[in-house]
Formats: sequence, structure tokens, C-alpha cells
Amino acid sequence: MGRIYNFSAGPAMLPEEVLNQAREDMLDYHGCGMSVMEMSHRSKVYQAIIDEAEADLRKLIGIPENYKVLFMQGGATLAFAMIPMNFMVKGKIDLINTGVWTKKAMKDAKLYGEVNVVASGEENNFKKIPDVKNIKFNKDADYVYMCDNNTIFGTKYKEYPETGDVPLICDMSSCFLSEPIDIKKFGMVYAGAQKNVGPAGVTICIIREDLLARTPRNPLPAYLDYRIHAENGSMYNTPPTYGIYICGLVFKWLLANGGLKKREEVNEAKAKILYDYLDQSKLFIPFADKASRSLMNVTFRTPSEELDAEFLEGAKKYKFTNLKGHRLTGGLRASIYNAMPIDGVKALVAYMKEFEEAHK
Amino acid sequence: MGRIYNFSAGPAMLPEEVLNQAREDMLDYHGCGMSVMEMSHRSKVYQAIIDEAEADLRKLIGIPENYKVLFMQGGATLAFAMIPMNFMVKGKIDLINTGVWTKKAMKDAKLYGEVNVVASGEENNFKKIPDVKNIKFNKDADYVYMCDNNTIFGTKYKEYPETGDVPLICDMSSCFLSEPIDIKKFGMVYAGAQKNVGPAGVTICIIREDLLARTPRNPLPAYLDYRIHAENGSMYNTPPTYGIYICGLVFKWLLANGGLKKREEVNEAKAKILYDYLDQSKLFIPFADKASRSLMNVTFRTPSEELDAEFLEGAKKYKFTNLKGHRLTGGLRASIYNAMPIDGVKALVAYMKEFEEAHK
Repeated sequence: MGRIYNFSAGPAMLPEEVLNQAREDMLDYHGCGMSVMEMSHRSKVYQAIIDEAEADLRKLIGIPENYKVLFMQGGATLAFAMIPMNFMVKGKIDLINTGVWTKKAMKDAKLYGEVNVVASGEENNFKKIPDVKNIKFNKDADYVYMCDNNTIFGTKYKEYPETGDVPLICDMSSCFLSEPIDIKKFGMVYAGAQKNVGPAGVTICIIREDLLARTPRNPLPAYLDYRIHAENGSMYNTPPTYGIYICGLVFKWLLANGGLKKREEVNEAKAKILYDYLDQSKLFIPFADKASRSLMNVTFRTPSEELDAEFLEGAKKYKFTNLKGHRLTGGLRASIYNAMPIDGVKALVAYMKEFEEAHK
Repeated sequence: MGRIYNFSAGPAMLPEEVLNQAREDMLDYHGCGMSVMEMSHRSKVYQAIIDEAEADLRKLIGIPENYKVLFMQGGATLAFAMIPMNFMVKGKIDLINTGVWTKKAMKDAKLYGEVNVVASGEENNFKKIPDVKNIKFNKDADYVYMCDNNTIFGTKYKEYPETGDVPLICDMSSCFLSEPIDIKKFGMVYAGAQKNVGPAGVTICIIREDLLARTPRNPLPAYLDYRIHAENGSMYNTPPTYGIYICGLVFKWLLANGGLKKREEVNEAKAKILYDYLDQSKLFIPFADKASRSLMNVTFRTPSEELDAEFLEGAKKYKFTNLKGHRLTGGLRASIYNAMPIDGVKALVAYMKEFEEAHK
């Protein structure tokens, strides 16, 4: 069978051009006689791959020179621990709670100091991103922590809070590279690769140098110290070499296809098709609040669990996968990251119309 | 150009059959319409991949039921931190120092308690593994820590210390799956995949359940708690899905090719070709002590740095790569992991003979 439309919340679809290139390179990368998986991370041929990946990422986003780019492991889950270990210097932080991922980050941060939840979407079941204009931040916080897009609830910030001299640290896992990013607003931005960027097992961290210069209260184990990775160009230990190579191919694909501004346009167009249909549907019910809607994860449901199940069952004949909502929300979810073609979204909406018609 | 002989200390060669399979599966794994990189880690198709990888690894080694198998990230470097964080309960450990890797482990462990170096190869420049029969271990140590094979110095334990009731924790990164392992001797065995097993970015941990049941002194952040990974079948967070799939292909390759006993025979035969030649050579000088020689990393040199450089330059015409020794030892090193064919070793020795002949 051919390639299918995979609506997974992550790991997720990758551009077919990237997979074709990876296949072509598998046994012999650019005539060097080795797979990228087999290369010493200390070799010239691999150094060129990681250098090019970083340079392309810097070009794509426009990362200022006073920010380091790190290719790490452990996903957001390890970052939840490392961020307070590295940056909770005075011992308290502000956090905006928008659901599961910020709660997990909070749990780890509390092991290292005080966490002030300055705003939360909890009272409305995380359907809504708090209004960032009305948040009172603590001037003596070490940093403000947020998660830009919630994959589970399908929510996304439309603007970022102004935190003055307090660095803003943002988990961008689910929307990283889906739109332009103004890095200067942040002390640190990080993202697990497995949504828009590459395979699981690579975490991209972009950290302002003055944050890295803060001395942690205690010496940290080597892997857990961001400074050590920064000083060694992500090569203190063996990095996830193959995953970084795939990310690099995705960066080139993005650059060749109009960059992040163009990506934002395409993603807006894709999401609009789905949301426009949901807004007029008499059957499907969108989950997230209109003003907080994610362009990456579109959450919705039918009036009953039985119909949701029937919808999922029927999706199989069109080879749509991973349309089931997260167990916390129930219902349905279509994750439509960068690599989901607009035709995939159109095909999904055609099936939704057909399903609605059949259940009038 | 065709495939070359890559003598890298890691990441290193992978079996060509594995790379061919990975290439074949790249855009569409077993007709599911997706690359393994694109699969949700929560999907049935991926669950089958990780389950099969674990089952094959258990079969290959003969892992008893009271040991958990974890697929982690962060390499040995993160394990250096996690092991004391999880298992240094009373606050002191014994450690056998055989070079760089145990020194790094020691540095991190000292952040959490007392480290007693019960034996060390330092006085003889790590050419020799200490005699394990003469080590006096502390009965009240939380564990004994060792590294089975030192990639840099080319040394390997030939027998393991008897540590009684104190669990033995072993970094097997460089020799894991190169020979049979009697897991019952150990409280924990772990290995970065990038030598004999797969791509960098996967760390395999095999941990006895009673070790996992020890309560750490302090609650740990989620990613850094081995119990959380064990309780969630390596799926607490998104695991390095593609790397685990490649490891699984390597496990199948090992099973199809006679298992670990056969692998040990082949590896002994491969290493013997090199060491036999080195022992009679009038030009090349082996580094490691005879009784401590690694079968995976063969360290040697010529009488001068100039000749070493000439040897490396001449190796290019045969497409041999990564023969340069580590900067700590200087000289030359041939890493001949599982996937290095015996013909690669024979070709290297043929070149060494030619080089020696030319420099009589």
C-alpha cells in the first residue's frame, strides 16, 4: 500500500522528500562509503552535517548570535528537570499552567524551589490560553515558564507575555518551525523534534548566553549542565547523530519551500479548512476555545463516544491513522504538522462531511 | 564509491543487512504506509516493534525475568548521573578506575556521596585491568561500579569481581553483545548503542528489580528516575523510536547469525589476526597489556608520531577510516565491533604488513 495520512500528535509525518533522501543516503552518504548512523561524531564528514544543521536552523529562524543552539536528548521530559537545575538560581519561578506539559514541568521544578502559578487554564478545562496581558509576574522570579502549544487540548498562545527583565522560557515542542519565531522575546526556547522537525530522540534548545552564564547553586552532573553542552558544540558526549541529520534534512526542506513565513501561511490555510468545517458542522463539536486554537492539533468530538468510535472505524477505509483524541479529552484529534499535505486535510474534511451526512 | 571499512570507536559500522532493511522500510514499514520515524509511539505497530526488540534482546542474552530492560536516552554520560541519583542510597560506593569513563562516572557520583576507588589502573597508564581477585570491597557500599571495556586504552576485563551482596553495576557500552553475558552477576548492566547495537541516542539498561525497589533519598525528577521508565515500559515519555527499531534489526541479525556465542568466536578470531600480527611485528607496538586486551578496540602505534601520521595517510588509499588513536594515548586504534567483517581486519593487516615492509 502507498503512503497514508497520519494524524499522529507525534512522532508524526515527515516530508516525503526527506525520507527519500534518507533512503538514498542509507548505505553510503554522499559517496563517503558509510551510513550517517555509522559515522564517528568526531569525523569531519559528521561535523559538517551538524554544523550545516545548526547554520540552516539559525538562518530559518533568524537566531541572534548571543543564543546558543544545542542538540540534546531526553525530550521535553528531561528538559523539565534540567531547566530548574540550571536556571532556578534564586529559588523561585513563575509558571503559566496550560495543561499536562506545564504540570509535569511544575512537578519537577518544585523539587528545586518555589513555583508560582501566575495564570492557569485549569478552571476551564484547559480549553483556553490565559489572557497574557492580565498576568502579574514576580519581578524577582528566576524565569517565567510556559508551553506555547498544548497537543492534548489543541490550544496555542496567540501572543507572548511581556516579562521584562525576567527571562521567558518556552516549551515549543508542538509548534516549533510551524511559523516564524521572534527568539529575542525568550531566554530559552526548546522543542522535542518529533512533531515538525525530525525523529524522536532529539531535543533542540536555543538558549541566550546570559542565562547560560548563571551559576547553578550546586555543581551539576555533566550531562545535566547546559553550559557543558554549549561549550562543546553539542559534542561533549555522543549526540543523537542520525536524528540530527534528519532534522538537518527537514531544515533544508523548509528553506527550499519558502521558510517559516510561508509555512505559517500554509498551516493557517490547512487549519482553516478544518476549523471552518467544524464551525458550521451540526455534528462535530470543536474542543478548544476559538481564540486559543492550535494550528497544529485540531481537537473535536461527536456528540457521543459511540459515534467517535464509529468515526475512527470508518477512517480506516481512507487509511487515516491516529485520529483518536488523548485520553484526557476523549473525542478526536487531527494533528496537522508541517509535513501533513493540504490534500490530507481536505481528504479528512471530505470524510467528515460524508460521516455527518450519513448521521443526519 | 562502495562501502568502506570504518574502524571508528563509535558510532561504528552496522551490518549491511540491517542498513538494507532500514532502507527498504524507510517510506513504508511492512506496508503500513509510514516510516518507523513517523509512527506514534503509542500505536500498535510501534508497540510491536519495541516489544519484539525487547523479547529478542532477552532471548539473545538470556535475561532473567527479575531484570527490567529499558531503552533510554543520554548515553553513558547521563547514566553517570542517574546511577548515583537512583542507587546511592546509604551514600557510598566502590569503584574500579580503568580510565576516562570510570573517572567521569566518579566525578558525577561524588556529587551524591562518597566514592572509594578500590582498584585503579592509573599507575600503569591504564594499560592493564586491575586483578579483580585481590580487590577488597566495602560490605556497606551501595554498589560497586566498573566499566567492562575501555575504548580509549583498548582494555577489557577477562573476569568479573565477586562483590557478594553488593550489586555490581557495569558500563558495557563497548563490548555489549560482542560475547555472551551472565546477567545474574550484575545488579545493572548498561550500554550506549553506538558500538555494537545501533545508532547513537539509545542507551540500553538492564536492571535487577530489587535495585529498582530501593527508594532514593530524595524524590527525583521524572526522567531521571529509572523506576518511572521501568513502570512504563520505556514509554513514560517518547522514546528514541527509530533508534530502538534499528537496535531491534541488529538483535535479529545477531539471532540469525548464531547468537552471542558465535559472535564471541568470530570476534576472537578477528582480534587474533590483529594481535598475532602486532606481537611479531618489528615496527608496530601494541598498547594494552596482553592479559587485558580488548577484542573490540585494538590499540597500537609505530615508533614515532611521524610514522603514525604516514600510516594514517596511506590508509586512505584502501578507504580505511578512523584509525587514529584517541588523543589521550596517541598512536593508532582499530575498533572492530560486531559489524566489522573479518575481511576488513585481514585487509588492515595486509596494509600493516605492506607498511612495515616499506619501512624496514
